[in-house]
Amino acid sequence: MSELKNDRLLRALAREPVDRTPVWIMRQAGRYLPEYRATRAKAGSFLGLATNPELACQVTLQPLARYPLDAAILFSDILMIPKAMGVGLVFEEGEGPRIERPVRSAAEIDALPVPDPSRELRFVMDTVSLVRRELAGRAPLIGFAGSPWTVATYMIEGGGSRDFPKSKALLYGEPKALHRLLQKLARATTDYLNAQITSGAQAAMIFDTWGGILSTPAFLEFSLPYMEQIAADLVREREGRRVPVILFTKGGGAWLERMSMTGVDALGVDWMTELAGARRIVFDRVALQGNLDPGVLFAPPAAIRAEVARVLESYGHAAGHVFNLGHGVQPGTDPEHVAAMIAAVHELSPAYHR
Amino acid sequence: MSELKNDRLLRALAREPVDRTPVWIMRQAGRYLPEYRATRAKAGSFLGLATNPELACQVTLQPLARYPLDAAILFSDILMIPKAMGVGLVFEEGEGPRIERPVRSAAEIDALPVPDPSRELRFVMDTVSLVRRELAGRAPLIGFAGSPWTVATYMIEGGGSRDFPKSKALLYGEPKALHRLLQKLARATTDYLNAQITSGAQAAMIFDTWGGILSTPAFLEFSLPYMEQIAADLVREREGRRVPVILFTKGGGAWLERMSMTGVDALGVDWMTELAGARRIVFDRVALQGNLDPGVLFAPPAAIRAEVARVLESYGHAAGHVFNLGHGVQPGTDPEHVAAMIAAVHELSPAYHR
Repeated sequence: MSELKNDRLLRALAREPVDRTPVWIMRQAGRYLPEYRATRAKAGSFLGLATNPELACQVTLQPLARYPLDAAILFSDILMIPKAMGVGLVFEEGEGPRIERPVRSAAEIDALPVPDPSRELRFVMDTVSLVRRELAGRAPLIGFAGSPWTVATYMIEGGGSRDFPKSKALLYGEPKALHRLLQKLARATTDYLNAQITSGAQAAMIFDTWGGILSTPAFLEFSLPYMEQIAADLVREREGRRVPVILFTKGGGAWLERMSMTGVDALGVDWMTELAGARRIVFDRVALQGNLDPGVLFAPPAAIRAEVARVLESYGHAAGHVFNLGHGVQPGTDPEHVAAMIAAVHELSPAYHR
Repeated sequence: MSELKNDRLLRALAREPVDRTPVWIMRQAGRYLPEYRATRAKAGSFLGLATNPELACQVTLQPLARYPLDAAILFSDILMIPKAMGVGLVFEEGEGPRIERPVRSAAEIDALPVPDPSRELRFVMDTVSLVRRELAGRAPLIGFAGSPWTVATYMIEGGGSRDFPKSKALLYGEPKALHRLLQKLARATTDYLNAQITSGAQAAMIFDTWGGILSTPAFLEFSLPYMEQIAADLVREREGRRVPVILFTKGGGAWLERMSMTGVDALGVDWMTELAGARRIVFDRVALQGNLDPGVLFAPPAAIRAEVARVLESYGHAAGHVFNLGHGVQPGTDPEHVAAMIAAVHELSPAYHR
């Protein structure tokens, strides 16, 4: 594999000195980019795109061709594990994901297989290898997966949800059955992320998109321990470097202290939480990634620059900051506004690293 | 007006001793009740129901006929102020609210009238008077309004939203225009709540449903000050008793300390925040209301009882707790499960008031 020429991301995640704050964007490859929409049209469908290594590699690299980013992130979806488990994942045009055979009983849970990622998710590993080759060391590649709790909600509800009634019914009514599902997903996710890492992913991120809809006791029982278990079982060194793990619970601001003690290298921080306060709480145990409100990108460049300045100042003069949005970039975002954000990070962040 | 025979709610909001924890439920009159759906069908439409004092009164009282609740809350909607401002509020069947003439420019904002609640919202005041007469002192009546920020998002987006792109564009791009809208809404909301209070509402609640999608600096600039201003300008004594004000920002757990210093009597707490921690933070400046996960009501009665016990224990042995859900009761909730929740509060809470 090519030697890494830009290691800002890995250095920041290790809380080592850098010349400027590294920057990448959650969902940086996606619907807001016209070149993405063109490739997506060629693929015919979202799943057609995500399961085709050549096209998925193309899409992964598109934002790096357009912007001076410090990382690539695998183009994929958090529902690849349920797909491999055979629950019938479909993406209806403009509708979001749907799972044809939702999983709600203990018997249905016990019948689920733990997929072999080198077989059922071969296309993901092929994408990782291809991206690494094409990147040629320009920037590190981040692999990812959804958290067991987050992925479980889709499998239980049969798709996206607003109030998660069936997931809550299982959580409060049949907690043991839910634990069995989460345990199975944790094993599958560990295998999946380890396969990504051995295929070439240089960092791993776990997205707990729906952890924030849990009460504190429920988060500590049903989401956090499974992410902790995955982190403990991941391959953490490859090609002579540490493979850092980033944990992100949207709406998890109240749990950052507990999350910082799971043995991960960094925490993602949503835009509702101030980085200054988060830094005091995690007490330099972990690096922090975030946290510009994705809505800022709907405002003009001058306003974007001012808000970038505010995020940098909130983290302050210290190592261990990776600039990012506080959640994924939103459809309808002007690509020029993304450019303005990145330019502002390049221009304003060196002052924090002298 | 009839003398109040059950003043548990008002005593708890004043942090005075009570025999057991008072209990009411956000959205207690609504879709989960068959008797509500019958009245709604008679009215023909949601707005037909909400603007008809006799039917709105009927619906307000339905949950009190079914359950031993310690408060009634006016049946209405947070969008009555935009309706009175003439922006064209419609409720499409199964779609949620839509605003036909969204407000996005400074000129559109300046053209908005501040409604006279005794005229344009006469039907609300008639409902309040009617409910007070029919309640005959059985329990206090809570009036309510949306927060200026929350109501503004509907006016700007033209309805409900997931990512609030237009609201964020205005907030970050034209903050002065947004402040003008919020100022106008704050004046209208003050007039509206004062009219409810002088018509007979015995407590007032401000729902900041979308405050939690703001960054901390944005919440402190665009939502909190307007709620603080409203609270300062409300009539706070009627019929020889204090009219308490309750503030509720969903997702506002990180801001409870600051919110407790706004001069309100109580804070609503969502289910993601632990009451024990919240109590330490607000340091007995205010009462707390909440915070059972509404999703608990999808589980069987035994699980509901256990979670009620957990909420009561989290608040602990002290005055100043009003039991409620951490957000509105969800459509599809079994009315028997609501009964189980209330029974558990009645059975388990006296131990905390000895």
